[in-house]
Amino acid sequence: MPSIFTRIIQREIPGYIIAENDDAIAFLDINPLNEGHTLVVPKLEVDKLFDLDEDTYLKLQAFTHKVAQAIEKAIPCLRVGVAVIGIEVPHAHIHLIPLHSMSDIDFSRPKLNLSPENFEEIAVKIRSEV
Amino acid sequence: MPSIFTRIIQREIPGYIIAENDDAIAFLDINPLNEGHTLVVPKLEVDKLFDLDEDTYLKLQAFTHKVAQAIEKAIPCLRVGVAVIGIEVPHAHIHLIPLHSMSDIDFSRPKLNLSPENFEEIAVKIRSEV
Repeated sequence: MPSIFTRIIQREIPGYIIAENDDAIAFLDINPLNEGHTLVVPKLEVDKLFDLDEDTYLKLQAFTHKVAQAIEKAIPCLRVGVAVIGIEVPHAHIHLIPLHSMSDIDFSRPKLNLSPENFEEIAVKIRSEV
Repeated sequence: MPSIFTRIIQREIPGYIIAENDDAIAFLDINPLNEGHTLVVPKLEVDKLFDLDEDTYLKLQAFTHKVAQAIEKAIPCLRVGVAVIGIEVPHAHIHLIPLHSMSDIDFSRPKLNLSPENFEEIAVKIRSEV
């Protein structure tokens, strides 16, 4: 059964997509820690990020670098932080999280409750910087 | 004034060094969340990770990929997680953290108290897999 991320990649379920290339996609996390919280996902459905071979990993990271710089331009924040945990969905993914304080990367804290309009507005802002 | 990480790179202060190349270094975090918690640091002293130009960023990530795979081989864990926050030390660094549960990436929880012998033993194990 394809992962929820593969279903977003295949447009079976909707997502607030920020950018996409042949190897990877970036879309807003629908349970965001902060506004602009984005997931970067390789199209190859592997469970663990570091199981990607070096070439595929570096293509993903080149894309991640571009998306993170766009988020830093689009969303007021101290910087974009990164988290890779990935135990909940068995399809490798990189969290890019605009940080306002050191304690922002804490997945146990309550997620933001944003409307579809909020998400779309954020996505438009980041897309315009990619 | 050079950062604490630059002082480790320049061997002015000691560190449990795992690996090093022309552009980056990896050493154990001395306030680890879990055994094997490692920092990967570019030798270029920039504050924010995504301020590195793409080429330098990808060299750092190629090194990170190698070190993370070594940690996964050396340290029993579900996988190696990643965190980049970097507000406390103004020299970009990537945390590689062996995970035993989803909640392991929480920098507010108490750090492990390891002896120099513990650190050295962990460093030897990971080094042997790099």
